Amino acid sequence: MSLKDFFLNDKFAALAGCELLDIRPGYATARMKVEQKHLNAAGGCQGGALFTLADFAFAAAVNSHGRVTVSVDSTIAIHKSVSTGWLYATATETLDHRKLPFCIVEIKDEEGRLIATFTGLAYRFPEDDPRNKVLPTL
Amino acid sequence: MSLKDFFLNDKFAALAGCELLDIRPGYATARMKVEQKHLNAAGGCQGGALFTLADFAFAAAVNSHGRVTVSVDSTIAIHKSVSTGWLYATATETLDHRKLPFCIVEIKDEEGRLIATFTGLAYRFPEDDPRNKVLPTL
Amino acid sequence: MSLKDFFLNDKFAALAGCELLDIRPGYATARMKVEQKHLNAAGGCQGGALFTLADFAFAAAVNSHGRVTVSVDSTIAIHKSVSTGWLYATATETLDHRKLPFCIVEIKDEEGRLIATFTGLAYRFPEDDPRNKVLPTL
Amino acid sequence: MSLKDFFLNDKFAALAGCELLDIRPGYATARMKVEQKHLNAAGGCQGGALFTLADFAFAAAVNSHGRVTVSVDSTIAIHKSVSTGWLYATATETLDHRKLPFCIVEIKDEEGRLIATFTGLAYRFPEDDPRNKVLPTL
Repeated sequence: MSLKDFFLNDKFAALAGCELLDIRPGYATARMKVEQKHLNAAGGCQGGALFTLADFAFAAAVNSHGRVTVSVDSTIAIHKSVSTGWLYATATETLDHRKLPFCIVEIKDEEGRLIATFTGLAYRFPEDDPRNKVLPTL
Repeated sequence: MSLKDFFLNDKFAALAGCELLDIRPGYATARMKVEQKHLNAAGGCQGGALFTLADFAFAAAVNSHGRVTVSVDSTIAIHKSVSTGWLYATATETLDHRKLPFCIVEIKDEEGRLIATFTGLAYRFPEDDPRNKVLPTL
Repeated sequence: MSLKDFFLNDKFAALAGCELLDIRPGYATARMKVEQKHLNAAGGCQGGALFTLADFAFAAAVNSHGRVTVSVDSTIAIHKSVSTGWLYATATETLDHRKLPFCIVEIKDEEGRLIATFTGLAYRFPEDDPRNKVLPTL
Repeated sequence: MSLKDFFLNDKFAALAGCELLDIRPGYATARMKVEQKHLNAAGGCQGGALFTLADFAFAAAVNSHGRVTVSVDSTIAIHKSVSTGWLYATATETLDHRKLPFCIVEIKDEEGRLIATFTGLAYRFPEDDPRNKVLPTL
């Protein structure tokens, strides 16, 4: 199994309609088409849906080095309400740290407008942790 | 329609299995049962699912004053991985500001352990904004 | 030396005029009088001064258990501009975690108005780390 | 007075030894030499000192468009402890929004290592607000 296929196992991302487009060392892109199911009570895309898309791209980027890496602290600033159309998330690991790496994700719409900015501080399992074996190599 | 019923219209929260339990001025509680559909590729509850639960309780708490209030900047620290069981979110608006209110949400499991802490800065529509009419009174 | 006196060695907090008032397990309070030296170019108390006060109370609270604990990710929401008067910071460690504890700090003015909310995720040194010896017991 | 000189009036940034190097539309750089006065009780540069440097560069970047812009929500992830040497902050406004702009600041040391990442959501005064007059043009 490729690392990209491994992320097909993210059931919540799948439920939200997120699709991983690209994964490279410290970098990943994903997309999601905003539909009725993503809307909150006021009719805009729910913050949780935007967060899920960003978190999915983040997870792919920070898990691209062969060690399981989990989110410990994330922020999302939502710049613009959306209620339809494709959203694209680009995750860039700005610090490939052995213990606490850091990653910035930008979500843009089809016109390239910045919709949300996500930052994530992650915790990376030690090199000898047997749980790292679940990760396919890139 | 009651304000509590209004939040039944949050389709993404419903998709994630979130249920609003209580809503009062500046305060709300919600719950979600972690199931297979919430898990990420590594088998833990996806950060987006936790965020959705917190954001749902947050939205109820900050929209309890008759003015539409949307998230602009949120953070979530995930303290413990979970893969099953009920999660309870308690949202407390610590600042009922006319423009930029602030709210803290704690997610705990059935044993009362702190699973995640969410903070949200929100933007509140001006009093005379016609869009406030969508909100039922508490 | 008491743990409280240990924090007199925080030179930057001293430069900013921060004073530790109380320190107990997982809890601390500090204060700072806003003066000319704290103001930014627009005449309000600089965000860095507010952050320093909050971070100082945070450091006291999370270092109260005999293990060196450093900040890894912090947020500060500034709710109100201030330019004079005493500010009081109250730090509450809401999660006394062995590795990544979490703490919330509220800054209030003399009238008890909420001026800023700080959250801090910290990294705690392992129990057997020799650097823990620098910390006096509470 | 130039806009760059206007920031000489930031008394707290001056107290912390911060120096504005460059300011352009939506962009600024600043530096600070870590000295004894910046150290916390454990001997590392205090988080508040790092925050002050980042916030200073942030303020210059977001106030470069002729409208007063204040911080409402900021985060700082501290990646590495430092106790000496020059630090350089680079602020990039990734969203020049009329109301709630967003800015990312990276702090690096003399060797170009990433020391801290700051993000700031700001509130921009309306175009007709008389307080905008305090700002010199770029």
